[in-house]
Amino acid sequence: MRLRIINPNTTVAMTHKIGEAARRIAAPGTTIVATQPADGPVSIEGHFDEAISAVGVMEEVLNGEKDATDAYVIACFGDPGLLAARELTRAPVIGIAEAAFHMASLISTRFSVVTTLSRTGIIAEHLLEQYGFRHHCRRVRAAEIPVLDLEEDGSSALARIIEECHRARDEDGIGAIVLGCGGMADLTETISREVGLPVIEGVTAAVKLAEALVGLGLGTSKHGDLAFPRPKAFIGRFEGYSNLTRER
Amino acid sequence: MRLRIINPNTTVAMTHKIGEAARRIAAPGTTIVATQPADGPVSIEGHFDEAISAVGVMEEVLNGEKDATDAYVIACFGDPGLLAARELTRAPVIGIAEAAFHMASLISTRFSVVTTLSRTGIIAEHLLEQYGFRHHCRRVRAAEIPVLDLEEDGSSALARIIEECHRARDEDGIGAIVLGCGGMADLTETISREVGLPVIEGVTAAVKLAEALVGLGLGTSKHGDLAFPRPKAFIGRFEGYSNLTRER
Amino acid sequence: MRLRIINPNTTVAMTHKIGEAARRIAAPGTTIVATQPADGPVSIEGHFDEAISAVGVMEEVLNGEKDATDAYVIACFGDPGLLAARELTRAPVIGIAEAAFHMASLISTRFSVVTTLSRTGIIAEHLLEQYGFRHHCRRVRAAEIPVLDLEEDGSSALARIIEECHRARDEDGIGAIVLGCGGMADLTETISREVGLPVIEGVTAAVKLAEALVGLGLGTSKHGDLAFPRPKAFIGRFEGYSNLTRER
Amino acid sequence: MRLRIINPNTTVAMTHKIGEAARRIAAPGTTIVATQPADGPVSIEGHFDEAISAVGVMEEVLNGEKDATDAYVIACFGDPGLLAARELTRAPVIGIAEAAFHMASLISTRFSVVTTLSRTGIIAEHLLEQYGFRHHCRRVRAAEIPVLDLEEDGSSALARIIEECHRARDEDGIGAIVLGCGGMADLTETISREVGLPVIEGVTAAVKLAEALVGLGLGTSKHGDLAFPRPKAFIGRFEGYSNLTRER
Amino acid sequence: MRLRIINPNTTVAMTHKIGEAARRIAAPGTTIVATQPADGPVSIEGHFDEAISAVGVMEEVLNGEKDATDAYVIACFGDPGLLAARELTRAPVIGIAEAAFHMASLISTRFSVVTTLSRTGIIAEHLLEQYGFRHHCRRVRAAEIPVLDLEEDGSSALARIIEECHRARDEDGIGAIVLGCGGMADLTETISREVGLPVIEGVTAAVKLAEALVGLGLGTSKHGDLAFPRPKAFIGRFEGYSNLTRER
Amino acid sequence: MRLRIINPNTTVAMTHKIGEAARRIAAPGTTIVATQPADGPVSIEGHFDEAISAVGVMEEVLNGEKDATDAYVIACFGDPGLLAARELTRAPVIGIAEAAFHMASLISTRFSVVTTLSRTGIIAEHLLEQYGFRHHCRRVRAAEIPVLDLEEDGSSALARIIEECHRARDEDGIGAIVLGCGGMADLTETISREVGLPVIEGVTAAVKLAEALVGLGLGTSKHGDLAFPRPKAFIGRFEGYSNLTRER
Repeated sequence: MRLRIINPNTTVAMTHKIGEAARRIAAPGTTIVATQPADGPVSIEGHFDEAISAVGVMEEVLNGEKDATDAYVIACFGDPGLLAARELTRAPVIGIAEAAFHMASLISTRFSVVTTLSRTGIIAEHLLEQYGFRHHCRRVRAAEIPVLDLEEDGSSALARIIEECHRARDEDGIGAIVLGCGGMADLTETISREVGLPVIEGVTAAVKLAEALVGLGLGTSKHGDLAFPRPKAFIGRFEGYSNLTRER
Repeated sequence: MRLRIINPNTTVAMTHKIGEAARRIAAPGTTIVATQPADGPVSIEGHFDEAISAVGVMEEVLNGEKDATDAYVIACFGDPGLLAARELTRAPVIGIAEAAFHMASLISTRFSVVTTLSRTGIIAEHLLEQYGFRHHCRRVRAAEIPVLDLEEDGSSALARIIEECHRARDEDGIGAIVLGCGGMADLTETISREVGLPVIEGVTAAVKLAEALVGLGLGTSKHGDLAFPRPKAFIGRFEGYSNLTRER
Repeated sequence: MRLRIINPNTTVAMTHKIGEAARRIAAPGTTIVATQPADGPVSIEGHFDEAISAVGVMEEVLNGEKDATDAYVIACFGDPGLLAARELTRAPVIGIAEAAFHMASLISTRFSVVTTLSRTGIIAEHLLEQYGFRHHCRRVRAAEIPVLDLEEDGSSALARIIEECHRARDEDGIGAIVLGCGGMADLTETISREVGLPVIEGVTAAVKLAEALVGLGLGTSKHGDLAFPRPKAFIGRFEGYSNLTRER
Repeated sequence: MRLRIINPNTTVAMTHKIGEAARRIAAPGTTIVATQPADGPVSIEGHFDEAISAVGVMEEVLNGEKDATDAYVIACFGDPGLLAARELTRAPVIGIAEAAFHMASLISTRFSVVTTLSRTGIIAEHLLEQYGFRHHCRRVRAAEIPVLDLEEDGSSALARIIEECHRARDEDGIGAIVLGCGGMADLTETISREVGLPVIEGVTAAVKLAEALVGLGLGTSKHGDLAFPRPKAFIGRFEGYSNLTRER
Repeated sequence: MRLRIINPNTTVAMTHKIGEAARRIAAPGTTIVATQPADGPVSIEGHFDEAISAVGVMEEVLNGEKDATDAYVIACFGDPGLLAARELTRAPVIGIAEAAFHMASLISTRFSVVTTLSRTGIIAEHLLEQYGFRHHCRRVRAAEIPVLDLEEDGSSALARIIEECHRARDEDGIGAIVLGCGGMADLTETISREVGLPVIEGVTAAVKLAEALVGLGLGTSKHGDLAFPRPKAFIGRFEGYSNLTRER
Repeated sequence: MRLRIINPNTTVAMTHKIGEAARRIAAPGTTIVATQPADGPVSIEGHFDEAISAVGVMEEVLNGEKDATDAYVIACFGDPGLLAARELTRAPVIGIAEAAFHMASLISTRFSVVTTLSRTGIIAEHLLEQYGFRHHCRRVRAAEIPVLDLEEDGSSALARIIEECHRARDEDGIGAIVLGCGGMADLTETISREVGLPVIEGVTAAVKLAEALVGLGLGTSKHGDLAFPRPKAFIGRFEGYSNLTRER
């Protein structure tokens, strides 16, 4: 199967890291295509960044539709554009936040999230509510590191994440920790070893969920509210979206 | 005060209608600037349309910031880009769905929503959940009319909306009806008279809420998760968003 | 329009303060009639005080109905008698707790309440649940000051409220603070300046919401469960309520 | 033990019926004192009636405190003044709505409520939400009979209630029915026999719950928010409530 | 009436203690039969212990059915096998966790639970959610004592429970404490005296609730999902459950 | 990997069918061991059947622990003994109800469940609540067929399931259907083709989720409340569970 992982920000190094993490975990028959939008923010740290990034996510899904894609992963912890992306394809589309929440709820009764900046906590909270995991998550914690610090050698980012994970383990009454940023895709093992409980990261979780759905022959339902967009005119820069052919 | 009403779709006739409805209801000192994005879909009937339209909403907010805007209204019932728009300004930003829900809950104990297409019902449901009105809304109903039918003379759209409103009144145990589309901004009185109970429409509700907030000296909190976006690089088409000056 | 603000307790000084706060914020065309019951407690600090005060609220609404009232505000943070009052009139009736919650949710994603005594916290919690704002409110805090201390010169009440507001700002992860007592109607600006985030107070919020509803031509729905009370006999002291004429 | 059953309306015949139902079910050592306010509505069919009736409930609790009362029952399905009444006494105070909901949830997984008028359904819904039984109740149904029809010989009230109970049994997927009016206290057996599933009525349920709490040595907690009212001045008709002696 | 109290663990001393606590509280006409399974764990401190203990609970209910039992109590705070046991009988079956939660919610607005081990907290949380008391319970606390320490003379168990109850009283904003273990059935008075607020323990609460239901003529509904098990074959060790006669 | 699928009932034909369905879907490297308890009911159609079956599930997990098992699936739609089973192993344990709910929520916004008998609907409802999917499920429907009818040639079971699925599709506003019985493991394709929307069945979903978790190196958290059972004495028939060695 051909799995397109869309890093919604435009930092190529992060796409590379995410792609590598995905390849390490993917099944033998899975080809990972890691990509990022041509246009958009270098990191996603709030609602505005996320709203803009969603356009790039859409474009990468449309590109994927021309590339025989079997499944998509949206590799930013806010799952930007998730439901919109689902409208564009019959393939499954998985967000890394939802993937991590689902997996965490299967191996623990309660988990905490450790994310980058506290200002993005509200995004995680809204997703937990929409997806149904509000009561499974004890607390959304922030290590207070900007996303791109995760890309810098010698940054103290890892140490601060581990420190926050220790607090989560000791104070929250949890069985597992969810890492709340796509840029943490390579840290799972290190943190899990340090902290001594299961650590779930969304990119890898989403790859395996996508493989699972494809294996089941399941894709996004085209019956009801995730059906292909109604064909219509778009104008200006977005003219290209006019009358998208429904059956790809 | 200067109130910028952003019609998130690109149908000028609808912007005009929305602007007119707003002007009829606005206080004497309120100047209504009705606008729509330069780029985007002619109507919004699903998650994809909404995701694309959010970019235009952002641009219209940024335009508004250069135009001494005191408050913003996002005039599509899915409140596209609402939290993102709030990050961009100290002014209040009101979505017409939230405005209608708030007002309906102040004059009735339970209400129903009558929207255009059933496929958009999920958008209303998610907003009801996020805003806290899930239990105040008995039912989200659809008249099954495309949004742009509301712009066509001689269409049966109004008749079908009224028919669905009658059903809501007779079957749902409600005290009020919320109209679920910005394109219904001119229908409130007619429908209310026909159906015999209060009918709330979001554009007018949002104008009055925006005036209320401005009158109170309240604007979007810049403390915490609605603070201005962190300055950063954007690339490609969105390069212009790089390092947005925080203090406008 | 003629707006009747009912201070549910019988402390005239508080009525005066509430009336002044309302007048400062009211639109030019709004006449504020501030009033309090002839009978009842001098302050409301629990369920019993509230239950008794509701009778006075009813009487003041009935008085208002003879006085061409366009809207009512119930100016105690427990919104005593709110739904009962709505049955008595076609005009909108707004409680100051609900008003503050609605406004806070429009300018922040999460807020905290700072009220007078911790024993009244449960009243705020029940209202948050009923109105749908449970998840928007991080915490209900008490400054542990009796209500009437707010009326005394030289009291330490303001200092203690500010102190609690600082804690809310620093510990709760919020964007705004709701002041939980009608007697704080004159403190909003001072506290907001001290604490550095938006502070919402219910009296002023309710005045603007009432103006907004009247501006929209919306009043309490008389269809369904807020219809006028069924006419019937009352006996004893309440005989005067017998067979209230429905159409006022 | 001495159990004071307060019929919150002023219809003596209903008090008599409620008292009789209570005596039939009471344990040998329980003395039933059935009473009603001197002042107030002859029936309670909405929020206004309920708000006024709460004053009489308070007075009857205060009368009870002078009468060595061991427990109180508030015998109207809206539980008017329940939390306020609890502040006035160390004895347990039970509302008949809560009593019925508790008992129904112990013998079935899901129940429906059959009440008198649909306009009072909202009161039951709010109580279900506050008490925690929202998901245990499938539906609140109304037989559309005024409360006092239950007192009239030859009325069709019973037949209509039974008819609605049959619908509840056949359509709602329930195991039990809760009767939603104190005036139905004598109908439980008849209806249960007719409908063929357990029927719970609040007066009798509350009597047994009150006996149970007294048997356990449990009364209303005076620690925290149900403590005795803070002593203070009341003026006018309610002057007698000034500085209520805390320890009765 | 004949009340069978089933201690789901196999520690006879605990059965004895539970039986004594029940007899002290039971009404004159109530005969207490305290029993425990022939097979199973000596204490219940997790999901596995609970799952195994449920078999013994079933057997004790079936034994009770041959012994003219009028009501059952399941005396472990996880309410193991509660709904299954209800299928087996027309009599009421009460779990001690639910009993304690119901009673606590009748005398306080908010309570906390103090249980033995933190690992069992999740069981209490799941029950609070299922029964509807999630928002009535502020916190589930653990004294971190193994269940059988409660049976040992000279253990520090009581001191640690009291210490945790003090913390609950001082930090949680509650009106009552629920003791979260059947083995605490004899500690209620001591703890309540020490801590100064109402302490509810489930065994005694369940006895009185069972008496209340029997007094009302109410038993487990046999209409719908708690009907007798469908007759069928069981094999192996459980062959004896084949085709249980429905009408006992 | 070695995946043990435990059919909690004792009908070997159903185990065979479930095993076949699992093998068809399993990845090349996955060995399916399909098994059922030696003791217990031939079908599970209520709480009692489920409680008894949980013992067999435990035994099959313990057997699996001696058989180098990498993951477990509990193949009954009530997920009997799920949390208890998780305590016994470091491997992941997946219930088929949860598996189906998770997968359905990834490809649709709302789904309905079609199960066998309406009396088991409550089990599904409780699971939906505990897992967080209450609002994702529109309705739990029953085809009113006993479980073992699914094993009989020439039964009308399939036709009735399909009929109910058509109703779900047409009336519920859904995007997917969840089949609510392990015995339907071979019907997914047929039904999906007939009904025209995605149909999710739990056995196959659970196999892929188990593979996903194993692929991620994730197993049941042993930190916190799913840790191995505390070692202790069991007596009688269950003596063999005494002091289970913790580290398997």
